[in-house]
Formats: sequence, structure tokens, C-alpha cells
Amino acid sequence: MIAVLAGGVGAARFLRGLMLEVEHQDITSIINTGDDTVLHGLHISPDLDTVTYTLAGAIDPKRGWGLENETWTAMNALSRYANILPNTSHAAPTWFNLGDKDLATHFYRTARLAEGATLSQVTNEIAQAWELALQLVPMTNDSVRTMITLAEDCAAGSAGSQISFQEYFVKHRHSVAVSAVAFVGSETAKPNGLDLLASADSILIAPSNPLVSIAPIRSLAGVDDVLCSRRDSVCAISPIVNGAALKGPADRLLTELGYEPSVVGVAKIYAPICGKLIIDNADAHLASAVEAQGMRCVVTDTIMKSPQVSAALARTALEESR
Amino acid sequence: MIAVLAGGVGAARFLRGLMLEVEHQDITSIINTGDDTVLHGLHISPDLDTVTYTLAGAIDPKRGWGLENETWTAMNALSRYANILPNTSHAAPTWFNLGDKDLATHFYRTARLAEGATLSQVTNEIAQAWELALQLVPMTNDSVRTMITLAEDCAAGSAGSQISFQEYFVKHRHSVAVSAVAFVGSETAKPNGLDLLASADSILIAPSNPLVSIAPIRSLAGVDDVLCSRRDSVCAISPIVNGAALKGPADRLLTELGYEPSVVGVAKIYAPICGKLIIDNADAHLASAVEAQGMRCVVTDTIMKSPQVSAALARTALEESR
Repeated sequence: MIAVLAGGVGAARFLRGLMLEVEHQDITSIINTGDDTVLHGLHISPDLDTVTYTLAGAIDPKRGWGLENETWTAMNALSRYANILPNTSHAAPTWFNLGDKDLATHFYRTARLAEGATLSQVTNEIAQAWELALQLVPMTNDSVRTMITLAEDCAAGSAGSQISFQEYFVKHRHSVAVSAVAFVGSETAKPNGLDLLASADSILIAPSNPLVSIAPIRSLAGVDDVLCSRRDSVCAISPIVNGAALKGPADRLLTELGYEPSVVGVAKIYAPICGKLIIDNADAHLASAVEAQGMRCVVTDTIMKSPQVSAALARTALEESR
Repeated sequence: MIAVLAGGVGAARFLRGLMLEVEHQDITSIINTGDDTVLHGLHISPDLDTVTYTLAGAIDPKRGWGLENETWTAMNALSRYANILPNTSHAAPTWFNLGDKDLATHFYRTARLAEGATLSQVTNEIAQAWELALQLVPMTNDSVRTMITLAEDCAAGSAGSQISFQEYFVKHRHSVAVSAVAFVGSETAKPNGLDLLASADSILIAPSNPLVSIAPIRSLAGVDDVLCSRRDSVCAISPIVNGAALKGPADRLLTELGYEPSVVGVAKIYAPICGKLIIDNADAHLASAVEAQGMRCVVTDTIMKSPQVSAALARTALEESR
């Protein structure tokens, strides 16, 4: 069995490569739900959906999220209601775009949760509807919310105030300075997949944001303990290449939260729980600095511009973690 | 001030006529919410929306419900999830069709209710978004659910069991026999618009189903008492013409619940609270039987095939109730 800790886009591409290498039923991915949100009464799980749609071959390849050949009729119609009320209302938010086809997934998830199903069950059913044979597991069935503390007064709020991850990431396009990240609810939330982490042959950490995609999973009780005890079987792929995130704010967040925006900063975050770090050829000169953190460092091509590159990367990660 | 008790399609057409006759701000319509439902986590108010969309000139004229030039992308996409689970699940119901544009209204209502707004406030805001100047008032801000008891074993369930109004009306296309109708929650729900009913110059009962559209309003504490005390100012329009409902199951429901399926059956239901009944020319021969119930009977053209007919009907109703 192979366990993969995952965020959204980067993880989805990595999993697509892994699926070319091993039997799908041997893969279980534990996926971040810290950026789940409720909008219009609908339970939205962005990372779960990005992974599901990508692995089903239905993701919009340009946007990297949502379904291809999507329409936006409902969201466009919502603009009629957007200016009826003052800004104090959270109704009719049009900054979080939900495609018409995509809505069906949120409808199903919301209705199932309302009738008492767990998020694990629903995630499994949705994966089944998309004919996926690997196991997708939300990191917890309980509510954990990634909250971002603003470093300075800005359009998003005053310094020191907290906004939700989606407000940070989507509404403000991760353009505001951050002083802290918190995972509200993680103290009491029960993690999913701990047994699997304890027994898996390989544990891979996908090239996701270590501070807002992997950290929520690690914030759950017992996860870091298990990873630490399996450290030699844990292999991470750096999402930072040549000092920059391929997508998203990982580089800036590293700097803002006191880490070097480089594979060395990533190594420092993962060293306690992970024995091996895969970095890109572009960062080969930093391999010894990574190893100085007490990790084995593997240098290869990590930019997943094709399924073949993803597959080769997955193969390397598997070899290192076994 | 003119108060209009209203259901869905028939009431909407009548109100459209009334709006041609009087200042819009002088009209307040108290609208049935007994057939409100929650689907996919969304709060849906079919009668409120039918009235709003019709008066805004945005209704689909062929269907009589929902928006014109509508698309059905979200509902079509939901079919992917419809067969994942056994019939015991209420998730992914595709029998209640929600258009993509229409969804925006449910999104807005659901989000506003979730942030603590009352259904009255939200209804008012939605009317404002559609630039309506008349007041649309949900019969209550509390939950009242019209429940239908099945008269015999059928596809909808076993004899004596209860189904929701929308299951009866939409899922089973009102084709199953009914033994009783109940308005669950009406004992404790607080009615809206009682003051208005007490002070209005005219009280009109739109040509809506007396047993499942007007009865839920009347089931609320105090409504029948006020109507009774204002009986001479209350004028109803029969939704039954020549023994049949123009739309919907009113005729069959009258029979099943022990009334004549005719204007006389309607008169018996309304006589305690309403001094005047307008019936169609086709039923002129029943005028004396209506008056035998203690009501003044007015015979005119009630089939609202044009706004002009609706307007003339409204004028007659106003004259009778003043």
C-alpha cells in the first residue's frame, strides 16, 4: 500500500503519474480539507474535487481547477443579487466561481452530509461516480478550517485579523501579506488514515504547499508522530523549484512565516517527519544544504509538464520510500 | 392597501392583472410557503419564486415556473451521482428540476437565511433585485410543511404514509390518491401580515388551490379570525372552472377530501371567511348554489389568457371587496 499526503493541483498531477506506475487500488491519498468552505449553503471541498476531477481526466487543463467545458450560468445570474445588500452580508459572493457542472458535486456532497453520511463516505461515493479505483480520503471528517492572519492593514482587513483560506487564496488572489496560519478545529478533529500511515509500504508527500496544504494534515493529532516513526519510509517532493512555487503562494508564505523560500526551507519543515526530499535539477546545487538538515536528497526532474514526467517522478519517490 | 392571499401560477397571473389596475406599492401579497423545501442544502420557495419571476416578466411562459431561456447543466450533471446509492438516500434527487439561472435565487436565499435574515427580509430583497415595487410577504418566517397523506398503496408509498408536497406534486405529478393534507408546524408558526389583513381596504383570495395553496395560510394562528371579521371585504376568485382546475390537482383534491369539484365546493371552503366569490361565465348556472352558501356570487370571465382579462378580473374583485 502507498499513502500519499496531498493538497490540490500539484498533488493531483503527481497522483496521475503514480497511477501510471502502480495498481490504482494500492494507492490511498489523504487529502487536505482545511480549505473546505460553505458557500450558498453548499459544502465545497476544493482539494478533494481538484484531485478527483484531475484523476478522472475531467479537470479544466488551463485553469487547473473545475471541470472542462464548463459553463457559468448560475454564477452569472447571482450577480443580480450581489449589490442588493451592503458589504456586511456574505450572501451572493461571486468571487468564488462555481461552474454549473461542478455544482452537481457540491449538491451531492451537501445532501449526503445533511442526511448523516461522513465526508469519507461521500468522498468515496464521488470517486466511485468518476470511476476512480484509488482511495481518496479526506484528512478528517470533522471541521478544520485554515485561517490566515493578515500581517498588515490591506483590502482584506486590518493587521492581525483572520480571514478564511479561500478569502486569502481566491478573493484576494493570495496577494496580501500573512503573519500566521492556523488550523481551527485541528485540536479536536479525528484524523482519517492513521492506521494506513502506520502500515503503508511507502508514504509520499506530494509536491503541495507545505504550509497550507500539508500542514493542515500534520496538525491533526497523531499524524506527525506516525510519520516521525516511519521517517525512513517517507519521501517528499519539493513544491519549490529554483526559489519559486510553480503555482500559488508557497514561496511568499515561506518567507513571510520565517523560512527560506527554497528547497532548504522545505527541508527544514519536513526534516522531523520525512527521511527523503526530492528536489528539481534546477536546485542541484542545494542538495548538500538539504542533506545538512538530516534528509537524503534526490535530484531529478520534478516539473510535471507531462504524465511521463509525473510517472518518472512517482517511480523515483517509490524507490526512495521503500 | 390591497392584500392578496396567493399560491403560485394562478395567483401570479392574477397579480399581474392587478398591477395593471393599481399602484404597485399599494399591493401586498401574502404567499404560501407550505410547499417550500430543502434540496441539495438549498432553501427553495416555489410559490414565492413563481410570483416573483412572473411579475418581473421573467417566467418561462410555457412551463409556468422557472425562468425563461433557462439551461439545465447542473441538473444534468447531477445524474452522474443519482445511481451511486440505493433508494434510501435522498441525495442527488433529479426529479425536482432547478435551472442554472434559477439556482442563483436559491443560493442567495439560502446564504441570507444562514446568516440570520428572515424569510421576509430575503423575499423583499429578492423582489428588489427584480425591481418589483409591490410587497411580497411569505405567509410565515417559520417552517410550515404541507404534508400529503396517501389514500392507497402506490409508487409514492403505502396507504396512510405522508409525503412532502413537492414529492406529491412534482415527483409523482399529483397522480396519487390523497386522504388528508396537513400543515406541519402551523400550530406554532407566527403568521406574517396579520396587521395588514386587519387594516387592508381590500382582501383578495387569488385563484389558487384552496386546499394546498390558500389553506396553509389559513392554518396559521389568527388568519381565519381576521378574515372572518373582515368577511365583507374579502373576495375570492374560484380556481375551478366548469368542474376542473385550469392547472394542477385542485379538482381531484376537492373530490378526495370530500368537497364537490365545482365552484360550489370552493364556496363551501371559503364561505366562513369570505363574503364574495367570483366564478367563471361557464359556471353561471351554479351562481345560486354558491349564494346558497351565504356568499355573494359574481360571474365574469376568469380564464386569464391575457393580461387584459387578468386586469378586468382584478378590477371586478376590487369593486366587490371595497
